[in-house]
Amino acid sequence: MAKPGVKQIQIHKYAPSGSSNGPDLLAVEEPLEIRLGFGPLTERTQRSIAITMRTPGHDFDLAVGFLFTEGIIQSKKQILSVKYCFDDGKVEEAENIVRVELQENVVFDTGKLNRHFYTTSSCGVCGKASIEAIESVSCFNLHQNKTTIKTSLIPKLPNILRTQQLVFEHTGGLHAAALFSNDGELIAMKEDVGRHNAVDKLIGAALYADLLPLENGILALSGRASFELIQKASMAGIPIIAAVGAPSSLAVELAASAGLTLIGFVRDGRFNVYSEFQRVVE
Amino acid sequence: MAKPGVKQIQIHKYAPSGSSNGPDLLAVEEPLEIRLGFGPLTERTQRSIAITMRTPGHDFDLAVGFLFTEGIIQSKKQILSVKYCFDDGKVEEAENIVRVELQENVVFDTGKLNRHFYTTSSCGVCGKASIEAIESVSCFNLHQNKTTIKTSLIPKLPNILRTQQLVFEHTGGLHAAALFSNDGELIAMKEDVGRHNAVDKLIGAALYADLLPLENGILALSGRASFELIQKASMAGIPIIAAVGAPSSLAVELAASAGLTLIGFVRDGRFNVYSEFQRVVE
Repeated sequence: MAKPGVKQIQIHKYAPSGSSNGPDLLAVEEPLEIRLGFGPLTERTQRSIAITMRTPGHDFDLAVGFLFTEGIIQSKKQILSVKYCFDDGKVEEAENIVRVELQENVVFDTGKLNRHFYTTSSCGVCGKASIEAIESVSCFNLHQNKTTIKTSLIPKLPNILRTQQLVFEHTGGLHAAALFSNDGELIAMKEDVGRHNAVDKLIGAALYADLLPLENGILALSGRASFELIQKASMAGIPIIAAVGAPSSLAVELAASAGLTLIGFVRDGRFNVYSEFQRVVE
Repeated sequence: MAKPGVKQIQIHKYAPSGSSNGPDLLAVEEPLEIRLGFGPLTERTQRSIAITMRTPGHDFDLAVGFLFTEGIIQSKKQILSVKYCFDDGKVEEAENIVRVELQENVVFDTGKLNRHFYTTSSCGVCGKASIEAIESVSCFNLHQNKTTIKTSLIPKLPNILRTQQLVFEHTGGLHAAALFSNDGELIAMKEDVGRHNAVDKLIGAALYADLLPLENGILALSGRASFELIQKASMAGIPIIAAVGAPSSLAVELAASAGLTLIGFVRDGRFNVYSEFQRVVE
């Protein structure tokens, strides 16, 4: 039986010992459109906010998490409802459109539709300006956060992540993001073809569960740590990120500037710490 | 000495045998804004088309490749010039803005600024509609393409890719995309923190070199094969893709629909073929 997020097809497999035809499982990728409804209830305005290629599942978490990490919403209270759009009567696409209704009293600034770092020309286009723009919209200050993580826990995180990754196990095709408490308890794990989507799903679910800011949280990532992922963690108030892969230069700069501990190359019992070293303790 | 695309920082390294402080190399990630100039030369209109987080290097190839794979331009002849923008006098961002000037006679449809698959409401939001939208803008028909690739060549491609990956070697942090001829000759290789950027850099360089459509080309990818990458290959008329990682469901559907041979999990002498099997020969 196919798992959610998995599709079976017939393929040709080649190996040194010979070739064969047979079934194989793929990670599902489908577009998701996120729409926003706002303004007076008697006269709603609808705006299409984004289309992202994602693995179906936890779509409402993804939509809400995206709106939060983009700075478009700040709390769960601003949300009136979240639904799939069956308006147009096309069944095949109904579950690929999520509409988030804002409460009537929420003022929606359409300027926030553009990504933060290039909304104003004064921002400029460089790493420094990108970082300043993120900091201007983030609600939480991580510099005062006293959370620590033990060096003995860090190498274990990828193994826990992997054992929880159901779809990856079948397809080899998904990124995973997980939230841990700083004593190693797994709070939640999400998978997606897009690593940014996996993180948005996690943060959206945390917003729903009133867990923000994630003051004692550790974000574990199955792959590389890019600027965008550090931005999302920073928006959610997460003090520590542990990635199996490499960070980029701008990811390290943002982490250092935002007061976030960035750990990378967590593999084979080793890891590197790139910023805010004081949170990593024996 | 630092290589282009690489930045050195001081980090803490932890290993079972003990911890140490020392230098480490990161893959550089910086925003690039792509601007388009069009209309009468005496009265140019400028539009900001996109901002992408990329690894600096081959920025003009990236800008031109992006415009081509998005269907905004169709040939090199439509380009008047490509330059960095020093207009605003900010040195730190000057090399993060590329302006592409179109020839005066090129009609630019601003509607193409939105991604193909959601420009019109009749398109819908689903995998099938996404595929139809790509096919409506692609100039090349791959179904008649008779290129073949030998099964003995396929497992060698990732090794060649890896030996050419200079920045990855230093940082572990970059995606690579390479173009090979179908007899295994390496035509070009590009690296980037974003896998879509690496492919756009390749295709932009091929456009400049008058190599499109890449009728005998093989696109080798260091990671996974998502919808977006198959779309870009299809736009450039590339008949065969060989990826080290897994493809997504929609990547396989688009490849099959567009007539492109998609090969995945190329590792340890093995590989899988997902579509257009006839191009893979003994």
